[in-house]
Amino acid sequence: MAALLKHVRPALQTESLKTHLALDRVAAAAVRSPSALPAFPRATMDGYALRAMDSFGASAGLPAYLTLVGEVPMGRAVQITVGPGEAAIVHTGGMIPDGTDAVVMIENTQVSREGEIEVVKAVAVGENVLKIGEDVRAGDQVLPAGHWLRPQDVGGLQALGITEIQVVKRPRVAILATGDEVVPPDQPAGPGQVRDINSYTVDGLVRRSGGEPVHCGIIRDNFEALSAATRSALIENDALVLSAGSSVSVRDLTSRVIDGLGEPGILVHGVAVKPGKPTILAAAQGKPILGLPGNPVSAMIIADLFLTPALYHLMGCTNPPRRGWLRARLARNLDSEAGREDYVPARLEERDGDLWAEPVFGKSNLIFTLVHAHGVIKIPMNASGIAEGEWVDVRL
Amino acid sequence: MAALLKHVRPALQTESLKTHLALDRVAAAAVRSPSALPAFPRATMDGYALRAMDSFGASAGLPAYLTLVGEVPMGRAVQITVGPGEAAIVHTGGMIPDGTDAVVMIENTQVSREGEIEVVKAVAVGENVLKIGEDVRAGDQVLPAGHWLRPQDVGGLQALGITEIQVVKRPRVAILATGDEVVPPDQPAGPGQVRDINSYTVDGLVRRSGGEPVHCGIIRDNFEALSAATRSALIENDALVLSAGSSVSVRDLTSRVIDGLGEPGILVHGVAVKPGKPTILAAAQGKPILGLPGNPVSAMIIADLFLTPALYHLMGCTNPPRRGWLRARLARNLDSEAGREDYVPARLEERDGDLWAEPVFGKSNLIFTLVHAHGVIKIPMNASGIAEGEWVDVRL
Repeated sequence: MAALLKHVRPALQTESLKTHLALDRVAAAAVRSPSALPAFPRATMDGYALRAMDSFGASAGLPAYLTLVGEVPMGRAVQITVGPGEAAIVHTGGMIPDGTDAVVMIENTQVSREGEIEVVKAVAVGENVLKIGEDVRAGDQVLPAGHWLRPQDVGGLQALGITEIQVVKRPRVAILATGDEVVPPDQPAGPGQVRDINSYTVDGLVRRSGGEPVHCGIIRDNFEALSAATRSALIENDALVLSAGSSVSVRDLTSRVIDGLGEPGILVHGVAVKPGKPTILAAAQGKPILGLPGNPVSAMIIADLFLTPALYHLMGCTNPPRRGWLRARLARNLDSEAGREDYVPARLEERDGDLWAEPVFGKSNLIFTLVHAHGVIKIPMNASGIAEGEWVDVRL
Repeated sequence: MAALLKHVRPALQTESLKTHLALDRVAAAAVRSPSALPAFPRATMDGYALRAMDSFGASAGLPAYLTLVGEVPMGRAVQITVGPGEAAIVHTGGMIPDGTDAVVMIENTQVSREGEIEVVKAVAVGENVLKIGEDVRAGDQVLPAGHWLRPQDVGGLQALGITEIQVVKRPRVAILATGDEVVPPDQPAGPGQVRDINSYTVDGLVRRSGGEPVHCGIIRDNFEALSAATRSALIENDALVLSAGSSVSVRDLTSRVIDGLGEPGILVHGVAVKPGKPTILAAAQGKPILGLPGNPVSAMIIADLFLTPALYHLMGCTNPPRRGWLRARLARNLDSEAGREDYVPARLEERDGDLWAEPVFGKSNLIFTLVHAHGVIKIPMNASGIAEGEWVDVRL
């Protein structure tokens, strides 16, 4: 994977979006705060703003008596000035008036006479107060370039009044299917023909990874046709995925075509992953090229493992979403070959408070194996099998 | 939560979409297969189609000799008939010709003379062949009603030629902010004023959970105004989220307003979750209503815990995405109070092959606590604290 990313240049264009529509996009540049947050000292509790010093030594037996000089209105400037021995009512989120430096919670006070409160517990300077800039100071970098924008990031930017943001354009991913037997899904499949599956599982993975799928059709198993189609697809897009047939002759054709697309060409031919051995990882023009196995289960697992990180890299993403790995207990023994990573589709079930992964067996030609699965169990390279009841990593 | 879901009626309308645009939507009805998949017997290996019986007893020392009668073309009907003692070249994914019942891998054959092959290993009936309907039979239910459509589901439907699908309409979630001090993010915040954050973190969570956020503005802290706004928001939408201030008086106002919206009204007032105690869970007209705490960190955590499952329930979703729980080791001791679930924002880091969760401390008034975090550590109800190095669950 590192070999591939080394040859991929993150060089996408940028665009400006309304911040709340930039969810799950990638910030094109670092964002700095134009102002402090909070912009004024705020109460974090309902109570009374006062000088902390006036409460020192106060207790239930010996309360401090303070004169009530008013109430802080919400959402407006405070007109009240609070002097020594005085206090003002303040609500959570309200502004702390000049002259005060702490808030005593209403629970730690009593009203004995109109216009006077008794404080029964001392507060420290700054207690129950958010200081100016305690969340963010003016000029602070609030997001680095390449930050994947999550709901809390969108909220944080709104708090600072940043309602537009420059984001990286979605990488355009050309998806080409090959195979004399492959027909589009909306056409009847005649004898010997199958409908295109892989273009659409890849389409979904590209969308989920922040990319824009560009369907370039189904190309016959012919060197000239496939070369021409891949060449123009690569020029017009930011990445190229080829879903080839699984026969040796077609794989050879695909690999010759990919190797003709430019330097450095094919980087890895065949990966130690089951299912998915005949995978091709390549790069040309600084763009990633992925040759997928023809079997739908292999194609999906390989695209998830290699295409997704390549797209994050293209976008320059510094905090890619940590998608769906979870731990579950294996519901039956699984064999594996050491020296190879195995991925086994699995259903997840809660039993006795634990999460169990029940392998779903099926040839990698069977797409509905994946439809019935919640994720895939990973069997590490160095394991020769895993016993029932052991904990495994499951990728959703 | 169960108390809330009991009063929420999943009664959304449906709409028809192109299947590949239905990613991350919910199927409105069960989908049955119009045809068998595969529709014809297919080879899973490159090799020769033959009658298995003709290979019985074959070995390197005593090969079976078969007459080659042709090659199966990809994507077209087979014109060849294969008789006893005969074989035909077949590629992976190719159709098995009439008269044959197995495929011998090319690796287990030799070509000695033109027009003849030697089989050096016996194959069983059905070996290296996908039978008609082995993936799906005609009439099989391939997806249940309420199924959340993932990339593999979209691919599977395309394989069956199902290029349009009926999905549940996105639930419309009315988002109302309240507070005399709250101003829209695109306006300057004057003294004592703050910009609306929670409407936008909720917006992001709603989008991610398959809903459609509908912003209903910022309402003053006034019973009549808030009652009128919530009443019409509830009629026009499928769910209602109120992000209120945190002061006791405003919380009381919110709860009186929510209780006036219809039966059963408030179900839960205050949850044993920190941060987020002043949460209100309610229902009216069969729709969920959520009163969020004012603090942005609490609001986000509570919306994630309660709004997301409510939306899945509204959509009738049977396989809601298992989002982002992962296991990590706690990077420092954390205290907690037994009898309460605590959620602590945390950064994740890989160290020595393990994933570590480093708590990010900050008052729940500080939105940038969450911006700097990858997720939140859950401290279970019955724990009075967790020691450094222990494994914890982190929600992304």
